[in-house]
Amino acid sequence: MTAAGGPVAPLPPTLVWCGGERGHLEVLDQTRLPHERRVLRLRSAGDVVEAIRSLVVRGAPAIGVAAAYGLVLGLQSQVEEGAFVERARLVAARLAAARPTAVNLQWALDRCLAAVDREPCLAAVWREACAVHADDVAASRRIAAHGAPLVRDGATVLTHCNTGRLATAGEGTALGILFAAWRAGRRFRVLADETRPLLQGARLTALELGAAGIPVQVVVDAAAPGLIARGAVDLVLVGADRIARNGDFANKVGTYGLALASAAHGVPFHVAAPASTFDLTLAEGRSIPIEERDADEVLQLAGQSVAAPGIPARNPAFDVTPGRLVASFVTDRGVLTAPFDVAFKTALGSGR
Amino acid sequence: MTAAGGPVAPLPPTLVWCGGERGHLEVLDQTRLPHERRVLRLRSAGDVVEAIRSLVVRGAPAIGVAAAYGLVLGLQSQVEEGAFVERARLVAARLAAARPTAVNLQWALDRCLAAVDREPCLAAVWREACAVHADDVAASRRIAAHGAPLVRDGATVLTHCNTGRLATAGEGTALGILFAAWRAGRRFRVLADETRPLLQGARLTALELGAAGIPVQVVVDAAAPGLIARGAVDLVLVGADRIARNGDFANKVGTYGLALASAAHGVPFHVAAPASTFDLTLAEGRSIPIEERDADEVLQLAGQSVAAPGIPARNPAFDVTPGRLVASFVTDRGVLTAPFDVAFKTALGSGR
Repeated sequence: MTAAGGPVAPLPPTLVWCGGERGHLEVLDQTRLPHERRVLRLRSAGDVVEAIRSLVVRGAPAIGVAAAYGLVLGLQSQVEEGAFVERARLVAARLAAARPTAVNLQWALDRCLAAVDREPCLAAVWREACAVHADDVAASRRIAAHGAPLVRDGATVLTHCNTGRLATAGEGTALGILFAAWRAGRRFRVLADETRPLLQGARLTALELGAAGIPVQVVVDAAAPGLIARGAVDLVLVGADRIARNGDFANKVGTYGLALASAAHGVPFHVAAPASTFDLTLAEGRSIPIEERDADEVLQLAGQSVAAPGIPARNPAFDVTPGRLVASFVTDRGVLTAPFDVAFKTALGSGR
Repeated sequence: MTAAGGPVAPLPPTLVWCGGERGHLEVLDQTRLPHERRVLRLRSAGDVVEAIRSLVVRGAPAIGVAAAYGLVLGLQSQVEEGAFVERARLVAARLAAARPTAVNLQWALDRCLAAVDREPCLAAVWREACAVHADDVAASRRIAAHGAPLVRDGATVLTHCNTGRLATAGEGTALGILFAAWRAGRRFRVLADETRPLLQGARLTALELGAAGIPVQVVVDAAAPGLIARGAVDLVLVGADRIARNGDFANKVGTYGLALASAAHGVPFHVAAPASTFDLTLAEGRSIPIEERDADEVLQLAGQSVAAPGIPARNPAFDVTPGRLVASFVTDRGVLTAPFDVAFKTALGSGR
């Protein structure tokens, strides 16, 4: 790391597949950022499940790609003749259960299972996982191109959690838009919600924006509505973990409060996500499963206990924002506006 | 401290004046709670300014009482004949500047300065400071009596920051209501917002409720709107630092977001505060000064830096909630409902 304002050494890639179909997955351990850059080598589906659960790899698109490679790892050992498809389904079910809210995980595994159905062999799964990976890189690029015009010169943009290259295989969703706008010469500043409990905003988003030279200030999550009310925010840009047919969507806990405050003060609220984040099987957001994580994520800070001994916590990792609070969904298939059911069907109907 | 569910040793008092007019002030250092119970002896007005600034003593009513005693301390040294009133004004101005948002500080000092005008001597200031202290204890008791009927059996109550005996000279404002309702036999549970950046909810509110045997769970601040949307909250009860004539009020940052979410889902949102928190000189909330505190409160956790080096933060300590989102103000003069300007004038007009 470097001093204030100085250049920041580029981060290692979020995830890399090394070798061919019998290779392994390397991931940057995001739980150690920003202070330590540790790359972990994952050699089994179990390693990938654990990396996803513990947030070593996180971000809806990135965990989709990691899960696809996890399926490859789970099928590398000798599988009995004729049992390949069955084994693939078992491994995929374990990977899908690692985190319940983001639909990208299931989407990537379904793609790979379809490849197995067509051609039940390791090479076919590996080729499909590589395609999932490449498609996510391309999706980031297209989201950025579609969304960059939303960011005006002189604007202050508020964002939540991390939606950059650490959350995808490419440059990111909401942050990818900011990187593209900055490269296009737009000059703006960013308020990054710290994003409790695990501080992905303070740790990861501020790091990525700082490295790109984009001015950023961290704020506590609870400060955002007051800042929006005082006119300090021109645009809110967030990612998503699962989007239902009517535009309701799940994202990191705290997103709903931002959307309410944006609506109360006429600040445009946009959601950036690839097609793989849409779950058109769900009519509305209330059907999205919300992951409850360990209370210690709330109660322990930097290895120290915050509250008195014996005090419990509740830790929902996501919340659901109604589609009526969303100005647009910026996707790799274009910028989609209400009525969302129609827009989604037209743009994504054949894609899921 | 004790194991989960076990009894908790009673906390030392939040503040105690020891001795007569030449005595000193002892305060419980709230920055060390819940893990350490350290009592500090304050012997000068400067000690009190520093204790208020650093949040050793915090909570609008408690800092009002501390400031009154701080004025006594600042007048204990020999003052030239005829210069007592002038000296009192100088010391009061220093104390009032310690924190800008809570009006209780100015209110308590104004009371003591009026006593000095009537009788310019140390004994008179000390007697008035003792009266400020006793009045705050009585105000807590009356707020609790007026507010307890709001808390129904089986309810889940959400609260923010700390508004208990650590925030007042008595049993508290919003938490005082909960203590009274519990003693009256009502059975309910509490969700305590952790209250970033300084975690008064996780550290102090959970400690006070746990010690009283009231079931409490800590949640991150950003989780509250989603929990309200899911029907997990029946009542929101918060304190205030300054209330304007139209019912707009300043409170710990994050309060406004709670009020928006409560309004969106029809959850009653009540504010508990003594008469000393009302500033009827202000027509509306936008005139309330909002304290911006040090960025390190956001960027340092348990002595460790959260973000990469050089990343800045913005740290507004309060936000303003419009009166139209408030169901009632529970005060020591009764429960006041809209139209607030009329209700405040009737109940408080002669009191400020």
